[in-house]
Amino acid sequence: MNVSTVLSPALFHLYSEGLSLKNVVVIDILRATTSMVVAHKNGAMEVLPVKSPEQALALREQGYLIAGERNGITLEGFDFGNSPQEFSPERVNGKRIAITTTNGTQAVDASKGARNIYISAFINLSATANALINDNHDVLLFCSGWKDNFNLEDTLFAGALAQMLIDLSPATVNVSDDATRMALSLWQLGKENPADFLKDASHVQRFKSLHVESDLDAALKFDDFDRALRLG
Amino acid sequence: MNVSTVLSPALFHLYSEGLSLKNVVVIDILRATTSMVVAHKNGAMEVLPVKSPEQALALREQGYLIAGERNGITLEGFDFGNSPQEFSPERVNGKRIAITTTNGTQAVDASKGARNIYISAFINLSATANALINDNHDVLLFCSGWKDNFNLEDTLFAGALAQMLIDLSPATVNVSDDATRMALSLWQLGKENPADFLKDASHVQRFKSLHVESDLDAALKFDDFDRALRLG
Repeated sequence: MNVSTVLSPALFHLYSEGLSLKNVVVIDILRATTSMVVAHKNGAMEVLPVKSPEQALALREQGYLIAGERNGITLEGFDFGNSPQEFSPERVNGKRIAITTTNGTQAVDASKGARNIYISAFINLSATANALINDNHDVLLFCSGWKDNFNLEDTLFAGALAQMLIDLSPATVNVSDDATRMALSLWQLGKENPADFLKDASHVQRFKSLHVESDLDAALKFDDFDRALRLG
Repeated sequence: MNVSTVLSPALFHLYSEGLSLKNVVVIDILRATTSMVVAHKNGAMEVLPVKSPEQALALREQGYLIAGERNGITLEGFDFGNSPQEFSPERVNGKRIAITTTNGTQAVDASKGARNIYISAFINLSATANALINDNHDVLLFCSGWKDNFNLEDTLFAGALAQMLIDLSPATVNVSDDATRMALSLWQLGKENPADFLKDASHVQRFKSLHVESDLDAALKFDDFDRALRLG
């Protein structure tokens, strides 16, 4: 079971050969995939990532609540932005939600054609690792980044997940690229105190005004939810 | 003085704005930029990176020796491949050399239009850092990678150079992206024993049959040459 890591959507094409045999894990810690996992934890019936605001608006006609963000800002007229703190039980329990974001939902779109697409974040790290080991196919850890830029928080998570896969099944898991080796190194450095490790990250700096620091606290609730999220 | 890191040629476009005001440092530790620095150390009058084998062959007509490699293999009929061990004083002293490689010379080509293009490797790390501090312009550390893939050895070097810039001028050097923060983390982990840190790197594994391990030893001779190499 080969494990590779895509550090930016702009590098995804390097890994797309044989995609139909791979399990892709889409990672956007700040904030799309964290928010999607939180919404499920808090009782949402469905959280459907879509590429464009227009697709989300069309789904509203079918009864969906809609979440939308571009450049960190909630889209006008949408029910939610992209902060995990918005997806409370009161607002999401029993609901269907369509979500479109700057980076994460674009990565989901690029992953179409994969064997499975998982949505993951620290909140369901262990559940995702277990699901991947049980399915026993090659894994692509897809960091959504920020507008094609590498980011620390997604790569740190990729390292955490890769390490958990190795720990669960050392005999079968094969680290197959330098990006995963690097992610494992980051995790080795950051695991004792992830919040501290990420405090200088560009995304945290970029959105200080948009309560991203409390979003980071929310994002770092390890294994707060025990289900893997598989799309479709 | 902002310092950023390009982790793959496929991400260079994200950093190309204002390129004419930036100093670009092209990094291809295994092996192009290491070999270019070694050739200078051993007395080459000029080492000119060119994009295509045809351009190298045309320069041969003007008296250049030519070095060429694709996919790790020396190009047929060329005087040198891409191993630093080939560029001995006996073979290069007083010579002009044109070189074309899979990754490094492509990165040089992409960097055209920069304020300056530096060729660097562990062999002239300190000299390069001093030149950059003296010139006092924004710095782009450009990892050549492997066919657009991220690699460990180039990124480790980017971290070493970024750390040296910070140490030389903490008041003026600003780490401006997560890629540089990550490279600094790698260097923190790898600096005690870079050879050990890189022994599992994909490039080392890929070319075990092509004496890359002794190339790695050659590449890790820190500060064996005290000149920065600036093209043009």
